[in-house]
Amino acid sequence: MQGVAILGIGQVPVGEHWDKRLVELAGDAIFAALEDAQIKRVEALYVGNMMAGQLDKQSHLGALISDWVGFRGIEAMTVEAACGSGALALRTAMVAVGSGLVSSALAVGVEKMTDTSPRETTAALATAASADWESIHGVTFVGLNALIMRRYMYEYGWKHEDFAPFSINSHANGALNPNARFQSPITKEIYLKAPMIADPINLMDASPIGDGAAAAVVVPLDLVKGMNHRPLVKIAGSAVATDSLAVHDRHDPLWLTAAEKSARVAYNQAGIGPDEVDFFEIHDAFSIMAALSLEACGFAERGQGPRLALEGEITREGSIPIATLGGLKARGHPVGATGMYQVVEAVQQLRGEAGPAQIEGAKIGLTQNIGGSGATVISHVLMTE
Amino acid sequence: MQGVAILGIGQVPVGEHWDKRLVELAGDAIFAALEDAQIKRVEALYVGNMMAGQLDKQSHLGALISDWVGFRGIEAMTVEAACGSGALALRTAMVAVGSGLVSSALAVGVEKMTDTSPRETTAALATAASADWESIHGVTFVGLNALIMRRYMYEYGWKHEDFAPFSINSHANGALNPNARFQSPITKEIYLKAPMIADPINLMDASPIGDGAAAAVVVPLDLVKGMNHRPLVKIAGSAVATDSLAVHDRHDPLWLTAAEKSARVAYNQAGIGPDEVDFFEIHDAFSIMAALSLEACGFAERGQGPRLALEGEITREGSIPIATLGGLKARGHPVGATGMYQVVEAVQQLRGEAGPAQIEGAKIGLTQNIGGSGATVISHVLMTE
Repeated sequence: MQGVAILGIGQVPVGEHWDKRLVELAGDAIFAALEDAQIKRVEALYVGNMMAGQLDKQSHLGALISDWVGFRGIEAMTVEAACGSGALALRTAMVAVGSGLVSSALAVGVEKMTDTSPRETTAALATAASADWESIHGVTFVGLNALIMRRYMYEYGWKHEDFAPFSINSHANGALNPNARFQSPITKEIYLKAPMIADPINLMDASPIGDGAAAAVVVPLDLVKGMNHRPLVKIAGSAVATDSLAVHDRHDPLWLTAAEKSARVAYNQAGIGPDEVDFFEIHDAFSIMAALSLEACGFAERGQGPRLALEGEITREGSIPIATLGGLKARGHPVGATGMYQVVEAVQQLRGEAGPAQIEGAKIGLTQNIGGSGATVISHVLMTE
Repeated sequence: MQGVAILGIGQVPVGEHWDKRLVELAGDAIFAALEDAQIKRVEALYVGNMMAGQLDKQSHLGALISDWVGFRGIEAMTVEAACGSGALALRTAMVAVGSGLVSSALAVGVEKMTDTSPRETTAALATAASADWESIHGVTFVGLNALIMRRYMYEYGWKHEDFAPFSINSHANGALNPNARFQSPITKEIYLKAPMIADPINLMDASPIGDGAAAAVVVPLDLVKGMNHRPLVKIAGSAVATDSLAVHDRHDPLWLTAAEKSARVAYNQAGIGPDEVDFFEIHDAFSIMAALSLEACGFAERGQGPRLALEGEITREGSIPIATLGGLKARGHPVGATGMYQVVEAVQQLRGEAGPAQIEGAKIGLTQNIGGSGATVISHVLMTE
């Protein structure tokens, strides 16, 4: 496969967009990405979405969104792996362009979660877990993560307050991102006093849902090398790995095997190791997921994710800045869109367009999008060319 | 991209599988395809499915099915374009293998539609149409097709009985297919006396829903050329095209623009024209769709699809046999699986394994899977190598 570049990016602020339909959110992100790429048309559109069939009573988003943005007729489809759907859109677009199937493609992630009742949205989210072994018992997604977090605290001796830096870091970064759902920093006191959701996960351990859309235009690297006035971003590594949906069925419920595998493959493709990663757009759906991801991707020893956070290494000035524009916790988690927000934010960082949230000299970024509690994991290494 | 072959196929009978979960149906088709291909493992799994999130309360089928069939860890995802989801699984697998991303892949289409109430299933099917312009008015899928059929009859002067040969042909062929939902031939009298569903579409104009799964193993053509004792089937053409979801928004609601475009591209890739096609696995969700597809794919003049049927050209002995193992009308239409049933049946024909339904000397088959009322159309040309 030939090399693939991300030529343009676009996003809408994550929020409660009661005045816009799903197709409009997707369209706004796509129009922004096309304008950013300075191109008028693409040959294919890949949509990352999890729940439109359930919550919007609308499946078949590929053709729908293609038509809405004026590309009636082009190849289009939806790709889905629960909350990992967004990054699958980028990967599918990359393979389509890299293989020569098409010479340009759009990847868009989109989700609309706030027009329905919390009960409906929670039920739709639970379809990411195993219907037969998990959700049938009434366990919600936050409930599952609470079980993992409790076990983790027991095994490795961490206290709840040790997870505070994850949330504080994400909110500090989100405060610098005009597209974030929450743009206020939080203190440790706010973290500790937050209402309990599913013990030990409190409100500040859990990412918020939201409506959102983020998009990227991908083209062959050779086609645009030297043509762009900005730093050009290439996809240097891309990998998908899977695991059992049901957490109890894993050899070790405290190890994200699929995250480790997909990161390792992506590192190898890019010819780098974790030490060379300048920042990590992490899937911090819950604080515990941030800790486990840091370990699986080689940034912390097993059981030591919280130490990295407590030592300040995950902040903009640390050795591995994470959630640099707010992450899922503060930018928000419109599930099928999240993976594309991560990609868009990584491109912002690599181009030096992250404003006050900029990581100085960032040349290599890792994005990792997780479906379910680690059952599908998509890792991308993005680099300046 | 390198050439891609279909090395193995598997399917379960379409029916009411109340004793099997969705994952078991998919697994049974996959195990059959692996055995047929005589291989133990693949590197990736692509799942075509439309409604599991809505009807089974289970999204995230890629990881789930991979784990179920013993391939925990491999790359996996779901692809969706309403009733066109099945063929997208084959296309995605073909691109993955053709590009060198993986050296083997499974494509499986699966749907479970009979465990829920008719109201729930009908509502889920309606998400294939435009929620904003069509389903919000209460129009069902059969209702939409009835509007198209009525207009077609008005424009071209056909009577309802002129569509009888489509249904009679499908049922005659389904009677020869042990995997078909309906295995009894019907007469013209049965067609004419069938209860009306949405005038002018009666029960014999409409395909039945059902539970089902069908799968194929794809590998690089060069890897297996000369190794297989059976006729080897290659994917000679593959294309996706889209149109507006809402039928009223098309320049001509009686012309399937996306079907025409995707068939033309697939013909060109294969270096053939419609005259060289030996049989056509058609998306006869409704008789009117069979007529429109024959016209769009170059087998009949505009408005003359029924004439081809009335002249007997669509039967096994005719110039363009369609629905050779029952089609959607008699084999059944488990929506996300249908596109893969078409592919599996085409391979049966090309290998000479279609039993009493065999088309003598079949060397080139066209399969065409349609999402919505023509909004996403996937065409494949399969050939013996």
